[in-house]
Order: sequence, then structure tokens, then C-alpha cells
Amino acid sequence: MKSISLGLIGFGTIGTGVVKLLGDAGELLAKRLGVELRLKKIADTDLNRVRPVSVPSHLLTREPMDIVNDPEIDIVIELIGGFEPARTIVLEALRRKKHVVTANKAILAEHGHELWKIAQEEGCEVGFEASVGGTIPIIKTIKESLVANEIDYLMAIMNGTTNYILSKMTDEGKDFSEALKEAQKLGFAEADPSFDIEGKDTAHKLAIVLSLAYGGSVKTSDFYCEGIEEITLQDIEFARELGYRIKLIALALRRGEKVETRVHPTMIPSDHLLASVGSNYNAFYLIGSASGPIFLFGQGAGMIPTASAVLGDIVDIARKMLIRGDIKPANVDNSSLQSRVSILPFADIRTNYYFRFMAADRAGVLSKISGILGEHNISIASVIQKGRKKDGAVPIVMITHEARERDVQDALKKIEKLDVVHERVKLIRIEDERLK
Amino acid sequence: MKSISLGLIGFGTIGTGVVKLLGDAGELLAKRLGVELRLKKIADTDLNRVRPVSVPSHLLTREPMDIVNDPEIDIVIELIGGFEPARTIVLEALRRKKHVVTANKAILAEHGHELWKIAQEEGCEVGFEASVGGTIPIIKTIKESLVANEIDYLMAIMNGTTNYILSKMTDEGKDFSEALKEAQKLGFAEADPSFDIEGKDTAHKLAIVLSLAYGGSVKTSDFYCEGIEEITLQDIEFARELGYRIKLIALALRRGEKVETRVHPTMIPSDHLLASVGSNYNAFYLIGSASGPIFLFGQGAGMIPTASAVLGDIVDIARKMLIRGDIKPANVDNSSLQSRVSILPFADIRTNYYFRFMAADRAGVLSKISGILGEHNISIASVIQKGRKKDGAVPIVMITHEARERDVQDALKKIEKLDVVHERVKLIRIEDERLK
Repeated sequence: MKSISLGLIGFGTIGTGVVKLLGDAGELLAKRLGVELRLKKIADTDLNRVRPVSVPSHLLTREPMDIVNDPEIDIVIELIGGFEPARTIVLEALRRKKHVVTANKAILAEHGHELWKIAQEEGCEVGFEASVGGTIPIIKTIKESLVANEIDYLMAIMNGTTNYILSKMTDEGKDFSEALKEAQKLGFAEADPSFDIEGKDTAHKLAIVLSLAYGGSVKTSDFYCEGIEEITLQDIEFARELGYRIKLIALALRRGEKVETRVHPTMIPSDHLLASVGSNYNAFYLIGSASGPIFLFGQGAGMIPTASAVLGDIVDIARKMLIRGDIKPANVDNSSLQSRVSILPFADIRTNYYFRFMAADRAGVLSKISGILGEHNISIASVIQKGRKKDGAVPIVMITHEARERDVQDALKKIEKLDVVHERVKLIRIEDERLK
Repeated sequence: MKSISLGLIGFGTIGTGVVKLLGDAGELLAKRLGVELRLKKIADTDLNRVRPVSVPSHLLTREPMDIVNDPEIDIVIELIGGFEPARTIVLEALRRKKHVVTANKAILAEHGHELWKIAQEEGCEVGFEASVGGTIPIIKTIKESLVANEIDYLMAIMNGTTNYILSKMTDEGKDFSEALKEAQKLGFAEADPSFDIEGKDTAHKLAIVLSLAYGGSVKTSDFYCEGIEEITLQDIEFARELGYRIKLIALALRRGEKVETRVHPTMIPSDHLLASVGSNYNAFYLIGSASGPIFLFGQGAGMIPTASAVLGDIVDIARKMLIRGDIKPANVDNSSLQSRVSILPFADIRTNYYFRFMAADRAGVLSKISGILGEHNISIASVIQKGRKKDGAVPIVMITHEARERDVQDALKKIEKLDVVHERVKLIRIEDERLK
């Protein structure tokens, strides 16, 4: 199998995630792509830091230009962040006809114009899914899935730090500084949190999304941006009373030929999908002119979720290289066309169950039913038994702990034979414990 | 500008949507793609039906093979649905090296294996985003964005009809047959609704998703499927009491080397994102091994939303044809690289506002404040005024109807100059009316 060579510049948190995920998912990726992805070099100014992945030392360099100048490297992954030297490195890589994958909001938001121009001149791809919304496929959705749509409306939570703080204030009544300290302790906020808190991170991401959605360049200085520093518990309480939650929202809507767009704390109806986005999650609510409303939710940051988006971009570019004929897969793996997914027999599934028995309103019924359930290893989590009915049958409702389908079916057969049970038992499966 | 030729087979609801959207978004698509998409032929057995789009009669034919055999047609759009003649048409089109876009769940779920094999042999693309989840990019998300992930967990609402019925039962206390009748009246359910109601539509869609997620073939006969016919209001009420909502859920999770998967009415916690999916919407909650939880929501059906997904697939294929060099764009439009998005000045935005005034607890204060607001065309939607405070300042909270930012700023400047107003006015913008 031939391989595509990757050079990673920036071996920080996300970079480490990319190295780890390339290791963990390497086999899966090679199978899905038909070509191996080979990490050829990693550049970082700090090579001594202890990282949760181990890398052969011959891969490491302090000099990013070692990667940019390596003729064998096909795709440069830029994860330094900030303006310089990231901007120069990316432009130099493109000039050497290397594809680039980046999570760098700053250069995309403020130097996107320059970057697209050179990429187009050189016939190179730039992947930047990880720059906005972390693992959420917002870039791909706008560029590809909604290509036949104008974006009529966009409302988004694009910053995990501020969403975490506002959620803690709203749900637990913590004040701003207390919630911020907690976010810092959990690694959801930087030591100097101003970039997030003042809304600037959100503004950079919004500028990228606007450029895509409205087909032109937008700078953060083009629109209003306000942070969450002045949100008080008192206002959160009034908002609740009025049916709202306060979120840091990036908003855009079409106003004729112009776009209305802004970033600021916003009260949104508490029954809206965006209002239920808690903790440090991100989410996008958009209305396409043809699609209607679409809502996307997921982790906006984090080592492995962001690396998942970076690898998605790398595979996209690799697939284009295959189509272009830049590389030929030695052996296309057709096995998945022959294979069958191995499905667990239904009798072996394990889940929680709701049972409704219509039973005689008599002493000892509950003990008979629960006795049979116990014999079949089905343990009861809760019971509701309601008052007497005219025809003598009352509903007994039970929720079980996790049990096996086969045991449940066997037990219910026995229970249905009891004189005191009047109808077929109603069974509804519950999906609950796995969501906790 | 050169063009890519499309042949549409099946001029029903979705087919009509595709024709309409190709018309409405044609210019936008040509600009975004660099090549024109030209609808060359439309085949349908019924050419006399009155449709909400008009089409030149020379495009129309009763014979699908006129499209399959036309050497100029690059992409065949199959929107007949059902097994035959759709299956034969799609296979014949692939054999003639035409790319195919289809929304046909049935042939993908039961004949996918055969279809992928021929597509691969002929080097053709098959787009099928519209077959599952309508306008929601679930296929693209699994195949592309989450390519470095195993799908550890999937829980989805894939059928709008049953979700509509269950939502009406849960929210409005209507019984099953009443809710079904309403769904039929609104066009959300067929005259014979059994395919949806018995869960078979969901099972077909789940089979497609499982094949993608677990890289092998799956047939609907491989897993358990139960419909919603026997869900009663009594069980919905007990579910609510226990903290659950009942939804028709397609579930899949990894159990070692096997996959546990099933379709049945399921109680899910009422605070889970999926529980808030009302009306005829669809949604997917999945946990990727790297991405963590992702949630996607949107219209699972409907003429234009589904057409939006079909056009997304067509453009994906067209972009691959461009990369492959099958067609060269006459003139790449670079204008978007030079252009700037035209942003509405912030002073001209219109929205709803929350004001908190800290004011003296004295007669006439409210009338002074509301007087100034009125002079600036700001009308008040609601007011909260709470009891006396120690320092003499009490909060007065107001929510406005839609107002202009410039007017708000002018009014607040005047209000802050009043003796009876003690602090800077707190202002939070509200996003509400546009969401209704």
C-alpha cells in the first residue's frame, strides 16, 4: 500500500491528539481510505515537554521549515495557532504546493483572503474544519451539504469557555468569578481568559463562517462584539422569570443585500434547542433557504474531538489526491463489500424495561409478579401502583434495572399465566443508563 | 462555461423539488461550482399531472431508458423509489458509467451490496444523502467528518410520520388514531401509513446507516423492528411521570465484535436532546470514539429540504468530476476572493431588548422612563417591578418589542440622565420573535 506523508507543525494539545488518533485509528483509516497516512515529521519549539504519546525521536525537529521544505511531505498540518509564524508557514507550504490542514482561527479570520488566493493559484487544498466548532461538521455542512442554500439565519454558540461559565451561573447560581475559576481549574478556560470572555474567539469563528456562508471576506472589525463579563446573576434570574436563558450568541441574518451580524450575550427562549446546550458544548442553529432549520451540536474543543476533525480534513484531501491520480492505492480493500455486520441476537440485548401489568387489586399480586421477575434476574428500579378501578384491574407499572431480553420474555410469559394478571403485559424498552 | 448534464427519473414530489431548486439556486450553484448544472431530461410515467413547476415539454419522456442511454448525461437522479424498476434503472445507469444520486432507501437497504460492487467496478459515484434523514447531513458526517471514528453509539429519530404522531399524543393528549388522521391531513402520513407506523421505513434507513458505520452489509431482517401502533396515552402518561418521553428510536451500539441494534418505541429521559425533537423532525445522536457526542437535527422529509440534500450530492459528484478532469470550468469565478460581505451597520439592527433600570422607588418613575422610550419608537412588551430595596433603588425590568439599536442607545442616554435612575442601564439583546 502506498502512503501519503504528513508533516505536523505544533506539538501542543491538539497536535498530541492528532498523533494519538493517527496511532489509534491508523488501521481503520488505511482500510477506509485505501492508502496509509504516514506521519513523517513533527516540528515544535519545545521537544522536551512530557507528552501523553511517545514518538520516535528521528521524527522530531525544532524547525518548521524542515517540514515545509521536505519534498516528500504532501500535507502540512498547522497547529501552532496565532498569527506568526503560523501565517508565514502556511503561505510557504502552499507556495511549495503542499496541502494544508489548520485549526487556526486567527489567520483564517484575518488573512483568509490572502490564503485562499495562493491556495487557488497553486491548486492546493486548505482544510479548516477544526477551526470552528471543534468536532462539529459546520464547515462541511455549509460548503457541501447546503451548497444549494443561502444561509438565511444563523445562531450559534461557538465558545465552550463562556458557555461553561454561563451554564454554571444559570444552573448552579454561581457568580461570574466563581464560575470562571471553576472553568480554569477544569482546563476549560485559559489563565488569561480575556480572549474567550470578551467574545473575540467567537468573533474570529463567526468571521470564518460568514465568509463561507456569504461568499466574501469579513473581518472581525466589521461587526459588533460584546463579551459576558457584565452578566450578573440578577439578570440571569430575571431572564429565567421571563422565559429566557442567556447565552453568548453569534448571530447572522440576511437583510436584503446586507448581512446583519453580531456577537453578544443574548436572551433566547428557554425551550429553544440552543438553550439546552450546557457545559462547554458548542452548537449551530441555522436556517437554509431550501433545507429549513438544521441544528448541529458537539464538542467545540478538546484534544481528541478536535483531532477527529483534523483527521476528517486530512482524509478529505487524501481522497481528492486519489481522485486526481496523485497517488494510486496499491490494493483497494473490497472486503467490506463481501462482509456482513455481525449483529447481536435480539434475545441477548440488555436494556432497562417499562412493564405495565393490568392486575387484580388484591393483596399479594405485587409479590407474585416481583417474585417471578426475581427468579429471572430482573431487578426492579421503581414501581407505581395506582388506586382501584371499576372493573377490578389496576395498572402496576415497573421500571427495571438493566436486564436481558431473553429473561424478560421468559418472565413475562409466566406472569401472563397468573390468574391475577388480566391482559398482555405492556413492555416498552428504556434507553437511559447508557446516556448518563 | 461548460456544463454537467443531469437526467431526472421520477417527477413526483421530490423530483419536482429538485427541478424547482435547480431553477431557484441555479445561478448560485454555477457560481459556487464553476460549472453549470443542466437538467437535460426528465422521465416519468405520468406526464400530465399538474406540477408546481413548468418544464419545456421537449425535456419530458415516459421512458427512463431514454435517460440511461443518453451518452451526454453525466449524472442520473433516481427518485422513483421502491424496488423495481428503480433497481434495474440504477444498475443500468452505473453499467453505462453514469454517476447516480438517489433517495431510494429500499434499494440501498436491500440491494446496497450489489449496487456498491458495480459502482466500484465502473468507477462511478453513488450519492444517497437524501435517503436517510432528509436534509440532515448524516451520511456525509459518518463517511467523511467522522472517518477517524468508530461509531460507539447511535440513537436516532428517522421517521417524521411517527414522530409527529407521538408528539401530538404526548403534547396534546390526542389518541393514536386521532393523531394519525391529523398527520394524514397535513400530508405527513400516507393514506396507507403502515410502512411508517410499523417502523419499516426506520429499519430501512437504519440498515443504510449501519452499513456505513460498521463497514459491511446489513439487511432489515437482521434486526428487531417494532412499530408504534400499540403505544397508548396511558403509557405516555406513565412515562412522563417517570421522567421519560416515548419516541420511535433506531439504536445501535458496539458490543465487542458484535453490534447491538434495534428499532422500537423507546422511553428516553425527557431532558435528553432527542426528547425535544417534536413535530415531524428527524434527529441523530451519536457518539464517535474520538469525536464524543454529536447531535444533528433537521427536516427528514419534504419537497425542498430533500431536494437540498439531492443537490448537495450532485454538487459533490460534480466537484469530483472537476478534480478528475472530466470537465474543465471555462472560467473560474474569482470574484468572491476580492469581494467583501456587506455588513449592516450596528446602529441599524432591529431586535428585542431587555433593560434593567435601578431606579428610585417613587411615583412617576415608570412613566418618565416609558415616556422617553415612547418618544424613540420603543414599545414595551412587558415590565417587572419588584419591591422596595434598602438603598432606595429598585430594579425595573422591561422587555421591548422589536426596536432599532440607534433609537435604543439614544433613549438610554436620556434615561441615564434622569435623577431617579441610579446606575447605568443594563441592556441585553433578545433573540425571540424571529424564532417563532
